Amino acid sequence: MNTTNELTIDGERLWSTLERSGEIGPGRAGGLCRLPLTDADREMRDQFIEWCKAAGCTISIDRLGNIFARREGSEPELPPVLVGSHLDSQVAGGRYDGILGVLSGLEIVRSLNDAGLTTRRAIEVVCWTNEEGARFQPPMQCSGAFAGVHDVEWVLESQDDDGAVFGEELARIGYAGEAPVGGRALDSYFELHIEQGPALEAANVPLGIVVGGYFSRGMVLEIRGENAHAGPTPMDKRRNALVGASHLVVAANDIGWEYHESEGKSTATRLLLWPNKPGILPDWAQLTVDFRHPDKAVTLEMEAKMREAIKHAQARAQVEVEVTSTWEFGDEAFDADCLQLLRDTANDLGVEFQEMLSQAGHDAYHMTRVTPTALIFSPCKEGITHNENEHIELAYTEPSVNVLLHAVLRRANSL
Amino acid sequence: MNTTNELTIDGERLWSTLERSGEIGPGRAGGLCRLPLTDADREMRDQFIEWCKAAGCTISIDRLGNIFARREGSEPELPPVLVGSHLDSQVAGGRYDGILGVLSGLEIVRSLNDAGLTTRRAIEVVCWTNEEGARFQPPMQCSGAFAGVHDVEWVLESQDDDGAVFGEELARIGYAGEAPVGGRALDSYFELHIEQGPALEAANVPLGIVVGGYFSRGMVLEIRGENAHAGPTPMDKRRNALVGASHLVVAANDIGWEYHESEGKSTATRLLLWPNKPGILPDWAQLTVDFRHPDKAVTLEMEAKMREAIKHAQARAQVEVEVTSTWEFGDEAFDADCLQLLRDTANDLGVEFQEMLSQAGHDAYHMTRVTPTALIFSPCKEGITHNENEHIELAYTEPSVNVLLHAVLRRANSL
Repeated sequence: MNTTNELTIDGERLWSTLERSGEIGPGRAGGLCRLPLTDADREMRDQFIEWCKAAGCTISIDRLGNIFARREGSEPELPPVLVGSHLDSQVAGGRYDGILGVLSGLEIVRSLNDAGLTTRRAIEVVCWTNEEGARFQPPMQCSGAFAGVHDVEWVLESQDDDGAVFGEELARIGYAGEAPVGGRALDSYFELHIEQGPALEAANVPLGIVVGGYFSRGMVLEIRGENAHAGPTPMDKRRNALVGASHLVVAANDIGWEYHESEGKSTATRLLLWPNKPGILPDWAQLTVDFRHPDKAVTLEMEAKMREAIKHAQARAQVEVEVTSTWEFGDEAFDADCLQLLRDTANDLGVEFQEMLSQAGHDAYHMTRVTPTALIFSPCKEGITHNENEHIELAYTEPSVNVLLHAVLRRANSL
Repeated sequence: MNTTNELTIDGERLWSTLERSGEIGPGRAGGLCRLPLTDADREMRDQFIEWCKAAGCTISIDRLGNIFARREGSEPELPPVLVGSHLDSQVAGGRYDGILGVLSGLEIVRSLNDAGLTTRRAIEVVCWTNEEGARFQPPMQCSGAFAGVHDVEWVLESQDDDGAVFGEELARIGYAGEAPVGGRALDSYFELHIEQGPALEAANVPLGIVVGGYFSRGMVLEIRGENAHAGPTPMDKRRNALVGASHLVVAANDIGWEYHESEGKSTATRLLLWPNKPGILPDWAQLTVDFRHPDKAVTLEMEAKMREAIKHAQARAQVEVEVTSTWEFGDEAFDADCLQLLRDTANDLGVEFQEMLSQAGHDAYHMTRVTPTALIFSPCKEGITHNENEHIELAYTEPSVNVLLHAVLRRANSL
């Protein structure tokens, strides 16, 4: 094995694919706006598939548009090793995010081709549809369906804010495949993603091995008030859904601050209102909030405080508030063998690493349910992410991709 | 004159026009959603013009779609008496609102026709475009342009939330007229509107003569934060525009409550956010707030408190807040002669009335700038308005329309 330790990816080639990706679906400020099932998403998928075919892969697309580019192994009947992430972005997203993980998978295939190495197991580079949840909710939607968490038909019927239907949009861009979603044997799943936090850069360490997640608990709140004239209606007759929602946002934010010192976070990013016009009090609002903490018990404590705050907001704004849905993630278990393989590989290659928790959701979370899974991070500048100024350096990133290459190679040659 | 005091409108006929109007642009819950320059607006305008032509009026439409239906007088060179209001509604609007004022103008013309009376001055029934501001802002947009407060080209360029342009939409529905906007001699303007408050019904009085307005001061606030990931970003690095906006909404609402006992009101109804998606902190918000009080000095005190609250919100949410526009209305002076004419007419007809302040904005406010103007109210059920459950009774309304008939008739026969 020691001789193959000298095998490395072609960093410049990897970077050129990231640069090309960065041209597809440009944002307003140098980043990306590559929402799922848009024309930009199609263009990126077409480019990715062109690259994969040129690298000798066969392409399979499932009913949700998840793409699997397979580099055949010498024993095709063995379950494959999957490596990848997602190619979609936020509305004001960065150029790297999970894209780095997919294009690193492609670079691994190319590097193995260059070295003339055939693995026992096939390696499949995967691109999951709609990880970000920026257009259709929830995020990690199609890895979730692959892992049996979401019903395929339910995903196909989901709608964006303009009423466009997932299944119709998927067919429109030509990515409504025929392969069934999930339900096949896999050896393992490896995902590389940028850290989305400042820790690795601050420590000058090129690799994070993710050993667990912050426990995240989210809820959608529906606020019901009553339409009335913005002018003459006396304060005590007003049932303004915006006022109710604003009390909830302030309360959620205050709860995050209360746990700030122990790394707790709370978020409210999305508020829908109707009619949301001047002159008339809105009678309906929908607010999405979530709470995250390294300790699951503390996250649940934060949620309990939010439920108290709902009572307060109801009284203050004379509105009704209902929790219409909840979700949670972050206590999924990454695979002990895969984690040890990554530690060993990093040590063999002399790549320094930190073990850390993920604070964001990733496709890998869902994949833990169906196959041995591991997630690694590489540094990003100042932890800036979901922002068009997101930035990484090849020099920071290359070591983690080389670790991924060798971990995938070892796993693909394993019995 | 005493003999003509016996002249009355045909209440059933007036009611039938209100019923017909209530079928055009139905809302979701029995009221109206008749936004300006939509197909429903066109249908209502077509119906109104058909009625006016059948009543012998000639129609003039100005460049902003304001409609003037003229019943010629015996001395056509004299400036005309205008009577009317608006036919558009809120998104969840009532069936009466200003519609009552326009259709009462039509009923006055019909009643004069039935009585075979010709007036010295022409009477013009006017329908102002976009009083509500529910689609294009600001409200009272086209009476404002008629009175020289807004530039005609600026109105034509205004856009709705979907980017549709006023001038293009006006042409699309066939109401881009050729008459210049304003700039002609008028004798006077009379407007009847429902009260939009509970006072008249509670006192069992059928007529309110509006002697002034609550002083209203509004502002548009722009909140600038920074995009960031909803997950890992530490609380102290967050610059969430939604959190900033929510602090501002709560503060504005609290200020209203502080002045509740002296009839003060504050309102926040409209909040735009970008990107307004899960997973990413919004970096931009736009919030509309206003403050109203019978005493102008107190309204300005409320506004000063809001400006203090802006500083607090900026600090709490680490955002920048800018006041991008302000407006005010309510200290316009109604015409002393017109008010006295209304008092005298009501007394002559034996119609009980209250003198009162208007708490909402009306086209009549703008018209005070260009002609002697008066505004009257008739009762509405429980003060419910800008709500699809808005309701009036013919028996409540008929006396005020008869007062309007005789006031307009006297004014139209005056030298």
